[in-house]
Amino acid sequence: MPLHLPPAVDLREVGLRDGLQLEAPLPTATKLEILDAVVATGVRRVEVTSFVSPTAVPALADAEQVVAELGRWPGVAFSALVAGFGGARRAVAAGLPHLEYVVSASDGHSRANARRTSDEAVAATRDIAALAHDAGGRCEAIIAVAWDCPFDGPTPVARTVDVARRAVDLGADQLCLGDTIGSTVPGRVVELVDAVRDACPGVDVGVHLHNSRGAGLACVLAAVQVGVTSIDAAVGGLGGCPFAPGASGNIATEEVVHMLEGSGVRTGLDLDRVLAAAAVVERAVGHGLPSNLHRAGGAARPITPAG
Amino acid sequence: MPLHLPPAVDLREVGLRDGLQLEAPLPTATKLEILDAVVATGVRRVEVTSFVSPTAVPALADAEQVVAELGRWPGVAFSALVAGFGGARRAVAAGLPHLEYVVSASDGHSRANARRTSDEAVAATRDIAALAHDAGGRCEAIIAVAWDCPFDGPTPVARTVDVARRAVDLGADQLCLGDTIGSTVPGRVVELVDAVRDACPGVDVGVHLHNSRGAGLACVLAAVQVGVTSIDAAVGGLGGCPFAPGASGNIATEEVVHMLEGSGVRTGLDLDRVLAAAAVVERAVGHGLPSNLHRAGGAARPITPAG
Repeated sequence: MPLHLPPAVDLREVGLRDGLQLEAPLPTATKLEILDAVVATGVRRVEVTSFVSPTAVPALADAEQVVAELGRWPGVAFSALVAGFGGARRAVAAGLPHLEYVVSASDGHSRANARRTSDEAVAATRDIAALAHDAGGRCEAIIAVAWDCPFDGPTPVARTVDVARRAVDLGADQLCLGDTIGSTVPGRVVELVDAVRDACPGVDVGVHLHNSRGAGLACVLAAVQVGVTSIDAAVGGLGGCPFAPGASGNIATEEVVHMLEGSGVRTGLDLDRVLAAAAVVERAVGHGLPSNLHRAGGAARPITPAG
Repeated sequence: MPLHLPPAVDLREVGLRDGLQLEAPLPTATKLEILDAVVATGVRRVEVTSFVSPTAVPALADAEQVVAELGRWPGVAFSALVAGFGGARRAVAAGLPHLEYVVSASDGHSRANARRTSDEAVAATRDIAALAHDAGGRCEAIIAVAWDCPFDGPTPVARTVDVARRAVDLGADQLCLGDTIGSTVPGRVVELVDAVRDACPGVDVGVHLHNSRGAGLACVLAAVQVGVTSIDAAVGGLGGCPFAPGASGNIATEEVVHMLEGSGVRTGLDLDRVLAAAAVVERAVGHGLPSNLHRAGGAARPITPAG
């Protein structure tokens, strides 16, 4: 009885945004070196920065400068995260109309992250999606604290589903469910993905997972088994949300690639190059990374099964 | 489409053996304090030590002294790992006839771990199982490097299956597949479990997984989806094999409990008490533990889903 796995998934590298946002600001040139290493992995979707308050997130204050250089990497679908209309305008003005608009499913996180209620954040989807569409871009709604909120506790499934449905009704082209504090588990991933899909037929539903409690990769496995193919990951497992106490590292791109490729699911990424990119990230940030596969180093290089 | 999960699993705590074997030797009294905390978690199977060369594994040189105290915890099924007939005799003489006999599926690891070929190790199963049975105990065969060997590379499925079949033919009552260097992935877990079960009908097949490359919990999820219920884990994720370069931490009991209970699978363990036991282990060994759930600490306490 084999696992029911899709033939391929479509990873999105989020290390440049979710990975770097909590770090001390890096020079733009260093980010471009990381981008070079990231693109070399073979990944074809990259969340490259966010257009948010430079006061709140100084590490990403150079969003315009980074976006100005993206012509170096044709063939890669770049996107940027925004938390409101002002950021969306900056992104579009910078020439990047492919937006991920983050909407919190809880009021507690929404107020901490964007100084407004969840309902107010959802309502803004209309203008942000219209702005993206008018500029020839797309608008993905990333639903933060889709499972649990560090302030308000568990997010009822019905609430996340309602946020998703309204975001789509207001123009979001696709959805991504964010486990902002890395607390969800496989059974809950499947439950929520199924519920959101039922409510939003025909809309792609991806997942953005953290590994704070160790179940991140297992949640990926659960998600792909129910057909989720849009998966966020960060090289080296760097990351966390500045406005979510207890949030820690993203799931590590190299660990996802190792797990899925070894299980017969194509990712399009070259594992050696992902590990090389993690080394570039580690040098850039100047501290160790959460990824077990990266930290284990040469002695724990992946072993290719004989057959 | 929900995940296909069993209603309950039967965890075995291996931190006292696999967790401590690489550490500086602890006083026996400290191990008994850890045991107290471990038993309080509600776990009902505990691998308590190993009877191996005190020169090779000085941390477990007090196996007899530990076993002499086990009467304190009635109702717990204790077992000890052995690597050969001499150790089995010591365990039985100490009053613990429930043995886990570790047999390497590869010659490279078998020579490093037990100074003989895999075939020679398998052949010894007969006498060790007979010894256990004569003393009223059981003999489980743990197949080390069941997926990959740090010396010989990937272990062919047919080879591990053959070792399993022969061990059962020679008297092993049950089987456990060991991912000694933490390199396997969900697809390979399912493949091997299915193959071993087909070859050994009616024999319980458990898994002993490490998290060296981050996929440990995902491998648990895959295993339970195909009906594996015998699962090894170590409080805090401590552990590694002294004779397997690149081996690192066991899967952490608290992470397994969090993942499975949150997904509707009963473990019989109390998560708060597992986290308390991890804190006891951390104080005892005097360094941090690999478990993300433990390391994240209070800010990342599990959140109980609303429903």
